[in-house]
Amino acid sequence: MSSAGGAVSRLAAAEGRAFMSRALIAAGLPAEDADRVAERMMAADLRGIDSHGIARLSGYIARLRAGGINPRPNIRVVRDAPATALIDGDNGMGHLVMGRAAELAIAKARTAGVGWVGACASNHAGAAAVYAMMPLAHDMIGLYLAVANINHMAPWGGIDALLGTNPIAVAVPTLEEVPVVLDIATTATSFGRIRVAAQNGEMLPEGLVIDQAGRSVTDARAAGKGLLLPMGGYKGYGLSLVFALMAGVLNGAAVGREAVTEGDPGKPGRTGQAILALNIAQFGPVETFKRNVDRFVRDLRSSRPMPGVSEVRYPGQQAHRTMLERGASGIPMRPALLAELQRLADELAIAPPVLH
Amino acid sequence: MSSAGGAVSRLAAAEGRAFMSRALIAAGLPAEDADRVAERMMAADLRGIDSHGIARLSGYIARLRAGGINPRPNIRVVRDAPATALIDGDNGMGHLVMGRAAELAIAKARTAGVGWVGACASNHAGAAAVYAMMPLAHDMIGLYLAVANINHMAPWGGIDALLGTNPIAVAVPTLEEVPVVLDIATTATSFGRIRVAAQNGEMLPEGLVIDQAGRSVTDARAAGKGLLLPMGGYKGYGLSLVFALMAGVLNGAAVGREAVTEGDPGKPGRTGQAILALNIAQFGPVETFKRNVDRFVRDLRSSRPMPGVSEVRYPGQQAHRTMLERGASGIPMRPALLAELQRLADELAIAPPVLH
Repeated sequence: MSSAGGAVSRLAAAEGRAFMSRALIAAGLPAEDADRVAERMMAADLRGIDSHGIARLSGYIARLRAGGINPRPNIRVVRDAPATALIDGDNGMGHLVMGRAAELAIAKARTAGVGWVGACASNHAGAAAVYAMMPLAHDMIGLYLAVANINHMAPWGGIDALLGTNPIAVAVPTLEEVPVVLDIATTATSFGRIRVAAQNGEMLPEGLVIDQAGRSVTDARAAGKGLLLPMGGYKGYGLSLVFALMAGVLNGAAVGREAVTEGDPGKPGRTGQAILALNIAQFGPVETFKRNVDRFVRDLRSSRPMPGVSEVRYPGQQAHRTMLERGASGIPMRPALLAELQRLADELAIAPPVLH
Repeated sequence: MSSAGGAVSRLAAAEGRAFMSRALIAAGLPAEDADRVAERMMAADLRGIDSHGIARLSGYIARLRAGGINPRPNIRVVRDAPATALIDGDNGMGHLVMGRAAELAIAKARTAGVGWVGACASNHAGAAAVYAMMPLAHDMIGLYLAVANINHMAPWGGIDALLGTNPIAVAVPTLEEVPVVLDIATTATSFGRIRVAAQNGEMLPEGLVIDQAGRSVTDARAAGKGLLLPMGGYKGYGLSLVFALMAGVLNGAAVGREAVTEGDPGKPGRTGQAILALNIAQFGPVETFKRNVDRFVRDLRSSRPMPGVSEVRYPGQQAHRTMLERGASGIPMRPALLAELQRLADELAIAPPVLH
């Protein structure tokens, strides 16, 4: 592993994918599955979702080796209707389970107009946007919901950690513009962002984190042990709850006091997710729809900005730019992450990633 | 019309429904349709959603009389697939259009597992929760999205009003507990709440309203001319946008710079909405699901509260209590609203509502 001196080290996407694939194969995954997982992880890094790509590799490998994730699952459809299905992930990598779920939802939407596929006995699947975007190439809208199996948020007004970051992602195709891709957690912030603020010695604004007694926390260094607050107050609490019901309870996933606690790599996560694909052609001409989406996002982009704002954007624009830039120049790598990957390579006796 | 002296006047739900029905018939609706609209409007008042029930009657009647809403629409399915449909509302009352859409989504979900029905040429349908709750009696989850045809919000970082309050409502059935019913706008607050704050001489917190130049507004009396900010910052902006795409653009509704401006009662609204019904039985035993929802909401309710919080609740609990209380004691009526209804009765030459 080499680094370009003082500049930030960059890992080419293909090299990162190949390394992740090697690591996953060493942890027991079949080569084809390892490639698929690596590709979906790298898709997160390419879009700038650094917390959900290669930074998760060591954690996944630890779970695979401890028996917390099944490297060779029998992922199968256990309930099937014309427009819905329930997939049992057999405790496999969430990336495989939800890739399969997305394919099935797309197939159902092709004939039924809409497809909704839920998954049980699943695991962390990485970035929500990756799955919500799968229907795009089929001229469909994608919507992805997940229940996190680790609780970091209390119900609104409470101080017991009973809810996860339960994200939603929605992707909508366009004609000439960059697709609309929203990918958000229902918490106001994430521990990833808190860590960055702590490293930079920054204070947090009010409304992001409370301590175990319910008091506001603005010291980023103390926030790592706190509870995350929902985005938009009680509204984000409500969204987190209904997403947990639709992506979790409906599929038989663990929620509330049943959810596992962090730091138990040998215990199955019992995660649940759901994906919806909506076939645009069943509502009118696809090109008309895409042209109207283009017009709408151009309306938004052309809004006069607030004082101090250089550009008004819509969700998905920035991630697309990052993808183009990182596709060309590689993924910027923190030294600590590089060291972690080097250790992982040693542990698994595989070749480490080669940097630019 | 009489009032109980110094106490707040109360209007019995049945009396309110009957009055609204009379008014709608006088404005040209067939009796059966008028009854349906009145019932769905009163459902909002009963749940405490005062801004979306009888308080809207005068506005609807003005639009009906000015030709902005069609009192005798030919509401029809214009696109149909096994699990989706598009309904043309023929510019009828949104309450009728979305009632029909909900019935169709439920019928489709019964056989297909899920049903998604969109509506075009629709109008304001009142409270989102009313339609999201329709699938509950069929052991289904309901999800309702709407695009508001009046823009009160700018894109994040911008100052042009290009987005509506675009709400989401989700309803999930329970076994012994009160159903989970979330009904939220994607704006951080509403003009209804701002009016109440202005009447009470209260200041608004930061983060709710900006003026036309993008500056924060905290004086409630000045906020009525401002722009609403999204709930949860850029996340609420993103949700408002994707709901507008799924409930509006997909169905051919007006959005962005095309949306109508307030105060033109003679112009059709071209509103769009969408409803999804999800058949729980296609994912497992219904009773198991309901029991697990009960357990989850009990987990949430039993959270230790923050200092100063008396009770931790989940979405739908408070509205249910209000419904029981108002069902027994009637709907509290502001004097200004009572006077408005009296004027409306005079104008339409119908009997005014009789109070408790």
